[in-house]
Amino acid sequence: MERMGGEVVWEGRIGKVRVDRFRYDDGEEAEREIVEHPGSAGVVAHDGETLYLVRQPRDPVNDPALLELPAGKLDEEGEAPLDTAKRELAEEIGKGARSWQHITSFYTSPGFTDEECHLFIATNLYDEQADPDENERIEIVAVPLSDLDPVIRDCRDSKTLVGLLWLRASLNR
Amino acid sequence: MERMGGEVVWEGRIGKVRVDRFRYDDGEEAEREIVEHPGSAGVVAHDGETLYLVRQPRDPVNDPALLELPAGKLDEEGEAPLDTAKRELAEEIGKGARSWQHITSFYTSPGFTDEECHLFIATNLYDEQADPDENERIEIVAVPLSDLDPVIRDCRDSKTLVGLLWLRASLNR
Repeated sequence: MERMGGEVVWEGRIGKVRVDRFRYDDGEEAEREIVEHPGSAGVVAHDGETLYLVRQPRDPVNDPALLELPAGKLDEEGEAPLDTAKRELAEEIGKGARSWQHITSFYTSPGFTDEECHLFIATNLYDEQADPDENERIEIVAVPLSDLDPVIRDCRDSKTLVGLLWLRASLNR
Repeated sequence: MERMGGEVVWEGRIGKVRVDRFRYDDGEEAEREIVEHPGSAGVVAHDGETLYLVRQPRDPVNDPALLELPAGKLDEEGEAPLDTAKRELAEEIGKGARSWQHITSFYTSPGFTDEECHLFIATNLYDEQADPDENERIEIVAVPLSDLDPVIRDCRDSKTLVGLLWLRASLNR
């Protein structure tokens, strides 16, 4: 598969929409629309007893307050995903962590966007100052780790499902 | 949070990009860009010994052949997710299933798109005719269920990770 070229057809704050032309190995050519995204990072943060999640209004989906991992977009300047994860944990939860482990990275919807989401587990937590500008509509939700199964059952967000199912598998290992 | 109105700013084959205006409960107003998506359905299909996945080229992400669940978009006419799942299992794997179980539905990236992905487990499989038009670039990958952990470790696609981690949890219960 060879990329023949592309053009930006729309540009906004969430990114650009690009139309790319491709030639497949069998010679056939095709066009594909792609929503460009800088990538994102999310954090499964727990202290062995309590898991720290956030609730926030999400305009695109008709869900008043989705339960999610603390997470955010990579800075446009090509921020390292671990730095994004540390920044979001501090801004949204008001915590730092002494132990960080990368668990997986995945494409959220590879049929139409290049968004790659990087997930980390953060443990050995300590208090940091939350950023009041960033989290005025974010509610911190502290969940007992013993409630992991019902939280997973009610979860409606891809990165949060992946992170909590991964945590569940590692705790039961 | 109240939606005040919106306008379509770009339209293509993958859907529309809409800019919505919102008023939060505290009176502040904001705009949000949303990529509209009809939704999707994916299938964790196995016969107790073998799991059926697909490899296909994905132009938006720089990954020549991502390993994924058989899956597809809901038809624009508001197809029921289970019907999409049955259609994709037949078209991409050439199988039907006598047992279907809905496992979860989630938003792939709720910060910028309304795409909701519905996952099903399909068992008691039987052979059906694959659709040659639909799958010329799709390779069927049959994986022993005993290889679930290494497949999960290498997986880079959100719906596939959620589906296989969910399957893993249900097999170990």
